[in-house]
Amino acid sequence: MAGRNFEKFVDLASKIVAVGKNYADHIKEMGYAAATAATKAEPVIFMKPTSAFITQGQKIVFPPGCKNLHHEVELGIVIGKQARRVPENEAMQYVAGYTVALDMTARDQQEKAKKEGLPWTLPKGFDTSCPVGPFIRADQLVDPHNVQIWCKVNGKLRQDGTTKDMIFSVPYLISYISRYITLFPGDVILTGTPAGVSAVVAGDVIEAGVGDLSQISFEVARNDEQQ
Amino acid sequence: MAGRNFEKFVDLASKIVAVGKNYADHIKEMGYAAATAATKAEPVIFMKPTSAFITQGQKIVFPPGCKNLHHEVELGIVIGKQARRVPENEAMQYVAGYTVALDMTARDQQEKAKKEGLPWTLPKGFDTSCPVGPFIRADQLVDPHNVQIWCKVNGKLRQDGTTKDMIFSVPYLISYISRYITLFPGDVILTGTPAGVSAVVAGDVIEAGVGDLSQISFEVARNDEQQ
Ligand SMILES: [Mg+2]
Ligand SMILES: [Mg+2]
Ligand SMILES: [Mg+2]
Repeated sequence: MAGRNFEKFVDLASKIVAVGKNYADHIKEMGYAAATAATKAEPVIFMKPTSAFITQGQKIVFPPGCKNLHHEVELGIVIGKQARRVPENEAMQYVAGYTVALDMTARDQQEKAKKEGLPWTLPKGFDTSCPVGPFIRADQLVDPHNVQIWCKVNGKLRQDGTTKDMIFSVPYLISYISRYITLFPGDVILTGTPAGVSAVVAGDVIEAGVGDLSQISFEVARNDEQQ
Repeated sequence: MAGRNFEKFVDLASKIVAVGKNYADHIKEMGYAAATAATKAEPVIFMKPTSAFITQGQKIVFPPGCKNLHHEVELGIVIGKQARRVPENEAMQYVAGYTVALDMTARDQQEKAKKEGLPWTLPKGFDTSCPVGPFIRADQLVDPHNVQIWCKVNGKLRQDGTTKDMIFSVPYLISYISRYITLFPGDVILTGTPAGVSAVVAGDVIEAGVGDLSQISFEVARNDEQQ
């Protein structure tokens, strides 16, 4: 992984692969049967384009037609080297580091897509739908399966989970995804969100973090700023 | 659009945005109600990662678990400059050119995803799922809405359509997608497939083309080559 500047993973990334339903308490709040999650074999995989990234100072903008925009705080994995059909027991070698990410979701549009059997691309992949924080080196988070992950809206705690509760682990996800889709240096995997997702409105400030390693803050644009 | 080498759009591209259900005859063969397509407002949008691209000489590989792999020949639009919230009447200015593309689809896995309200990412986005041909300059295809689009398997004609039958036009699609997702130079939009999609098996050769402008040929890897 030498020679790459992973501080700039947002510029390096060729894709964002995301995982749905990876925390049992969030699965419950979304009304899914817990049993479907317990079948530890097939994670739910979707994508956001890299045009969805925003970084500190940029604002989250509602996509056209969305009336119900949700925050989902997630631990993001930053891939360190090309990963294709990687065995689970070697997968951690492909991790350059991590980031705090928000998987912003047009929940109303996603629910409609689910009902109609249609793709999640627009509800999940619209511009500004992936606010991310700075790069966290792998050696700063030695155990990615034992860290607090939290999200506040206007100072009020909404999500307070721990990565201990992930159903599919970091190496399992890398191994599983890389069976289908080759991952490249800088690519980001969003590992799913714990319970507590909720709607935000124009002017809200979302703060989120992973333990005491990294904290991010993003504002939701006001209607008159929505350009 | 000066200064960019669109011959190498595969390397330039940051994403592949694809359109489902854009030809009435294909909608019918897939068993959808024609009425849903006639509502000319909301195209079905999904994505493939750029890791899905293959070019002449590379082989199409079945993704893990897939037993029913389909070809879909499509006209691909290659974007020429950054497109964000582009009005339909200006959208053609954002087209650098076109390509012949195959939207390879793990139909069994896509059908399962549809039934369960899950994303189409793996059934549509696996490695080798987007074979493409050479770049066709915009001035070589002055009317993209009046060209034959065809696909043969082992020499037998399977798809024989015309882009006249597209429900959503090239400028409409650019305008619609760019309301949600910013497009960058080299990005590819797959515009949907006409009727005649069918299953391929290991060793099959798929040929496809757009009028007499471009013709591609890709082989489906044999089982013993599936690395
Ligand atoms: Mg999420
Ligand atoms: Mg790139
Ligand atoms: Mg298609």
